[in-house]
Amino acid sequence: MSDSFDRVRQLLRRLPGLGQRSAERIALHLLVEQPESCAALVDALRDAALHVGRCEVCGNVCETGPDKTGGICRICADASRDHALVCVVEQVPDLLAMEKAAAFRGVYHVLHGKLSPLRGIGPEALNMAALRARILSGSVLELILALSNDIEGEASCHYIQDQIAAGVELKVSRIGFGIPSGGGIGYADPVTLRSALDGRRSI
Amino acid sequence: MSDSFDRVRQLLRRLPGLGQRSAERIALHLLVEQPESCAALVDALRDAALHVGRCEVCGNVCETGPDKTGGICRICADASRDHALVCVVEQVPDLLAMEKAAAFRGVYHVLHGKLSPLRGIGPEALNMAALRARILSGSVLELILALSNDIEGEASCHYIQDQIAAGVELKVSRIGFGIPSGGGIGYADPVTLRSALDGRRSI
Repeated sequence: MSDSFDRVRQLLRRLPGLGQRSAERIALHLLVEQPESCAALVDALRDAALHVGRCEVCGNVCETGPDKTGGICRICADASRDHALVCVVEQVPDLLAMEKAAAFRGVYHVLHGKLSPLRGIGPEALNMAALRARILSGSVLELILALSNDIEGEASCHYIQDQIAAGVELKVSRIGFGIPSGGGIGYADPVTLRSALDGRRSI
Repeated sequence: MSDSFDRVRQLLRRLPGLGQRSAERIALHLLVEQPESCAALVDALRDAALHVGRCEVCGNVCETGPDKTGGICRICADASRDHALVCVVEQVPDLLAMEKAAAFRGVYHVLHGKLSPLRGIGPEALNMAALRARILSGSVLELILALSNDIEGEASCHYIQDQIAAGVELKVSRIGFGIPSGGGIGYADPVTLRSALDGRRSI
């Protein structure tokens, strides 16, 4: 419709989860229907672009200095949490989901991905060295691996157990897999059912 | 996680079609995973905020002067299109869908909504006066109403026929409703089936 409108629409289209139509709707909303929301978003993005980075300890999102370094996230800075208990997750949304469940009072380590030889993602592309350093510092007593229930998650678990946790007295566990809360057996896929059988517990 | 991150996430959450999780994913993408895409989006939004407005003729999105006025959209500026044939739509996305179908060579008029007494949307809140002015100028010979197949769309059609097109020699039609392409009769809802029966044609 207009060059500057099309540019915005194309950039929105590249954002995760946005299709052709949603990008169009959002561009119309920002540029025509509610221009004041566009100004607010631009200000917030410019500000955040300067002040948001990764936590130096765990890799979570956090407020940083203007050079994007020197940040410690709210969870790592919280003295009331158990810093000896570290939950390893793939991505920041996994951490946010765990926090929403409010079932974990330890701290986190975000890998920013999982091992995938097929896609050329090795340990050096992930936040693994920092995890090894945390473990070697002696402050970690238990590692809970909350990685996905697939081959790449499996491979990452093995790598952490064999390499990252090597030579250190450490309890390592993996979160349980099975039928989700409220899920019927009849609707579960074969992989989930197999996990559920493997993970059965005496009652 | 961080105040500036949360602000971006909240503003994204208010955009049409974005839920809690998609806003989170997009904020992470823009601020942590691909910061260069954030800078590009901010630039495009700031530029477009100055140069995108509504076409003075039809209400479509278009490039305007810095005061958001004086714009004529590409379709209204296209001399190869039939300017005597005007298709009335509710929103810009409806116009974009018509253009994608490439089945219409006339021009458009965007109402930016439909009449809805229940939600307090009267004719003065819509782009109706400009449509009346276009019709009175004598340049329009035919009006195709491509408004939605519901009570509010129906009311808007009646209003246009009775008030906006009043006292002018003008052909007014409404687009056909019925079973969509590839749609089975068994899956159609009752309203669609009724429309399809009403819209039957001799073969």
